[in-house]
Amino acid sequence: MTYKIGLLGLGTVGTGVANILLDPEGRNPLLHEIEIKQVGVRSLTKPRSIKSLGDRDLPEDYCTDDLMSIVTDPDIDIVVEVIGGIEPARSLVLKAIAHGKHIVTANKALLARHGDEIFTAAKSTGVYVMLEASVAGGIPIVQALKQALGANRITSLTGIINGTTNYILTRMHEAGESFESILADAQKLGYAEADPTADIDGFDAADKIAILASLAFGDRIKLDRIYREGIRNITGTDIKAATELGFVIKLLAIARRPEISPESSESQELDIRVHPTLIPKHHPLASINGVTNAVTVSGDPIGEVVFSGPGAGSGATASAVVADILSVVAALKTSQQNHQDHPKINQLMGCSHQHYASVQSIDKTINQFYVRFITRNQPGVIGDLGTCFGKHLVSLESVLQKPSLESSSENLAEVVIVTQRVIEGNFQAALAEITKLPSLYNIPTVIRIL
Amino acid sequence: MTYKIGLLGLGTVGTGVANILLDPEGRNPLLHEIEIKQVGVRSLTKPRSIKSLGDRDLPEDYCTDDLMSIVTDPDIDIVVEVIGGIEPARSLVLKAIAHGKHIVTANKALLARHGDEIFTAAKSTGVYVMLEASVAGGIPIVQALKQALGANRITSLTGIINGTTNYILTRMHEAGESFESILADAQKLGYAEADPTADIDGFDAADKIAILASLAFGDRIKLDRIYREGIRNITGTDIKAATELGFVIKLLAIARRPEISPESSESQELDIRVHPTLIPKHHPLASINGVTNAVTVSGDPIGEVVFSGPGAGSGATASAVVADILSVVAALKTSQQNHQDHPKINQLMGCSHQHYASVQSIDKTINQFYVRFITRNQPGVIGDLGTCFGKHLVSLESVLQKPSLESSSENLAEVVIVTQRVIEGNFQAALAEITKLPSLYNIPTVIRIL
Repeated sequence: MTYKIGLLGLGTVGTGVANILLDPEGRNPLLHEIEIKQVGVRSLTKPRSIKSLGDRDLPEDYCTDDLMSIVTDPDIDIVVEVIGGIEPARSLVLKAIAHGKHIVTANKALLARHGDEIFTAAKSTGVYVMLEASVAGGIPIVQALKQALGANRITSLTGIINGTTNYILTRMHEAGESFESILADAQKLGYAEADPTADIDGFDAADKIAILASLAFGDRIKLDRIYREGIRNITGTDIKAATELGFVIKLLAIARRPEISPESSESQELDIRVHPTLIPKHHPLASINGVTNAVTVSGDPIGEVVFSGPGAGSGATASAVVADILSVVAALKTSQQNHQDHPKINQLMGCSHQHYASVQSIDKTINQFYVRFITRNQPGVIGDLGTCFGKHLVSLESVLQKPSLESSSENLAEVVIVTQRVIEGNFQAALAEITKLPSLYNIPTVIRIL
Repeated sequence: MTYKIGLLGLGTVGTGVANILLDPEGRNPLLHEIEIKQVGVRSLTKPRSIKSLGDRDLPEDYCTDDLMSIVTDPDIDIVVEVIGGIEPARSLVLKAIAHGKHIVTANKALLARHGDEIFTAAKSTGVYVMLEASVAGGIPIVQALKQALGANRITSLTGIINGTTNYILTRMHEAGESFESILADAQKLGYAEADPTADIDGFDAADKIAILASLAFGDRIKLDRIYREGIRNITGTDIKAATELGFVIKLLAIARRPEISPESSESQELDIRVHPTLIPKHHPLASINGVTNAVTVSGDPIGEVVFSGPGAGSGATASAVVADILSVVAALKTSQQNHQDHPKINQLMGCSHQHYASVQSIDKTINQFYVRFITRNQPGVIGDLGTCFGKHLVSLESVLQKPSLESSSENLAEVVIVTQRVIEGNFQAALAEITKLPSLYNIPTVIRIL
C-alpha cells in the first residue's frame, strides 16, 4: 500500500518537499511507499519546474487550484500545509482534519494562534498534526521535546529562532553598519520580507517560542501572554558597548519554569519572552551567526543540550516536513484501529494538552539589566541614579561614566549601569522615576542580560 | 495496563534510570504507565540507596543477583541493559530477545561488536532494540538519524564523542600541561578509567562512530575496518603549534560518503575513521570543551545541523535510556500484533540493515596533513623534503622552518609542513621515503586537518 500526500502550496518549501518525495533514492526506504497525489496552488498558469526532477514523475494534472478538493479527497492520507498565513490555511487544515486526514504543517503563525482549535479537532477525529517544520527549520527540536527528551523535567529553553534578526545583528556586530542599511540589504537578499514587522519586532520568534514552550511544559500557551520586544532600537553604539563588555546582542526567545520558591503560591507560572539580550561571548549561543538558528534545552536530569542548524530555507524546512510525513506513515503502518476505524494515536507524537499555562507578567520576572543613560553633565548625577535604584531595591553590579558618544555637546555624559539580577517590576519603577530626574537627558538603551 | 521493566545493572546509569522511573512527576505522563519490576545486580550485599528516592517505591525484594531470571520473566516487557561490557551482557540480551523482551541498552561496545547477531535475533522475534544511550549520552543523535533526519541523504557525520579525550585535549590547550599529568588527574576525577586504553586509543570513539555510521548510511559496519588513532602522542609542542596556526586539536570520529566520482567503481565505499584532527578555531566543534560531546550531521537537503551536550554521566545517559523506554511503550500501546502475537515493529525505530558497508582503506582517503619534522641543520633539507613529496604527487600548502623547540642542539631544525588535500597513500609513501633521508632526525607529529 502506498500512502498518498496532498500538498498545499508549491512555493519554496513546497517545492523542496516535492523534490525529496520525487527523488527518494538514498534516503529513508519508507519514502518509496509515499507518493504525492495532488498539489494545490494558487495559480495554475505559473510555470512549475518540479515535474522533471528526480527519479519519479508526478501524476498528470497533479496541480489544482481547488484546494478544498484536496483536503476532502478520500484517497489522500496526509495533507501537507505549506501555504503559510492564517487563511485559507486554517480552514483547509480544519476541513482536512474533519475528513480524517493527518496534517503536516510548517505554519507557526497558524499553530501559535489557532493551535487550540486545530489540536482539539485532531484529537476528536484521531489524526496526527505534525509541526517539526514550524520551528527552527531543519533542526529536529520538536521531535526532541516530544520524544527524545521526554524523560526530563524541562527547566528552560533558550533559542535564536529568527534568522532574519540574527542575520541583521550578526552584520551589525561584524561590520558596524546601521540597522536600517542591513535591513534594506537583507530584503534585497531575500532574508527579510518586504514588510519586516513579523521578524524585526519579534512576532515570529514569539509564535515559535509559544509552540516550543507548549511542547516542553505540556500546556497550551496564549500568545498575548508572551512579552515581546524586537530589535528596531538596537544601535551601533549598543553593539559597540556590548562588545566592550564582552557580550554579543542576540534576539533570544526564552521559556523557563522558574524555580519553585517555598513562599510563592504562583510557582507554576512560566516565564516566556522574546527580547534582545546581551549574552557572554563564550556562551554557546554567542557564536550562532547569520541565518543559523539554535536552541538550548535545559532539563533534569540531562543538563543542557544545544541544537543548531539552518533555521529556514527550502531544503532545511522540507527536511523537517518530510521527516514528519515519515513518522506518520511509520506509525500508521503498525497501528491498531480504534472502534471508529481510526488509527490509535502514538502518545509521543500527539499534542494532547488541554490546559492553558499561566504565564508570568514580565514585571514579576527576574532579570539583569544593561542600561545606558545620557545625562546632563552636572554634579550629583550618579548619586541621583543610585538613589532611585536603591529605593526600588535594585542592586547595581557596575557603573561606568564616560563622555557621551551620541552628542558633541559638552554638557552631556553617558552613564552605563549593569544591575544585579532583580525583579523587573522594581527595575522599571526605578527607571520611571529616573526619567523624571532633571539631570537625565534620555535613556537610549535598556537590554536584559542572559 | 502497566509496562514492566527489568533493569540489568545498578551502577551510575542504572541508578539514574531508576531515579527517573521512581519520580515521574513533571516528566512525560506516559512514565506513569511504566514501572520497574526487578533490578539485577552483581552483589546483593552492596548498600543501595534508590529505594527511598522519588514518589514511588520499588517492590520489596526488587534486587536479585539472578539476572537470567529477569530476562526470562514472562511478566517483564522491556529489559534495560546498563551493565556494560561484552559478557554477560551479550548472553543476557540474546536470551531476553529470545523471550520476546524489548531491549534498551547503553552498551556501545556490545552493539559495535555483536550488533549483527543482536539485530538479527531481534528481527526474527519482532522486538525493539533501542540504543540512544549508547552514543553521546543525552544528545538525541540516534533518534535524529533514525527519524528526524530521515528525509536526507546523509553525506557526513563528524563528532567529538569521547569525553575523556576531549577533557584531556581541552586542558592541554588551556593549561599547557602534559598529557600524562592530565590523564592522571582525569583518573582521579573519574573522567578516565584506571585502564584508559578504550578512551585514549580511540576504541570507544570507534565503537560509537560505527553505530552512528550504520544508522546514517543504512548498512552494518565491521569495526575492524575503521581506521583508529588515539591521542597518546599529542605533545604540548603540537598544541602550541596548532594554536599558532589558528587550530585546535580534537579527537574526531568521522564517517563520510565520499562524493561519487564518475570514473570510480568504488564510489559506494564509506570513509570512517577516528583520529586527532586539527580543526579551525572558528569551526563549531572547536569550542566544544571538556567532557561535552558534539556531533555535526551534513545531508541533502538539510545542510549541516549540530547537536551538543553532556556525553556521559548518570543523568544524561539515563535521560536517553528512559526516552527509549518511552518510545517503545508508546509504540506498543498503539501497535497491531502480527500473526505470532508479536507487535508490528515501527520501521523508523527498528534497525533492519542486513548488508555490510564497504569501508575505504585509509590509504584511499583524501586528507590534508600537518607534519612536523626535526631535521639536521644542513643545506638542502627543504629541497629533499619537497622533492620526496613532489615525487608522490603531494602538493604543499605551506612550509615553515624554525629552530627546533625539542632540542637544544644547534644541529637540529624544525620544519612544519602543511599539505594540500591529497590521497593518504601518496602522502604515506612520501613520508616513508623521507624517514630514510640522511638529513631527517625524526617526525614527531603527523596530524590530519579537518
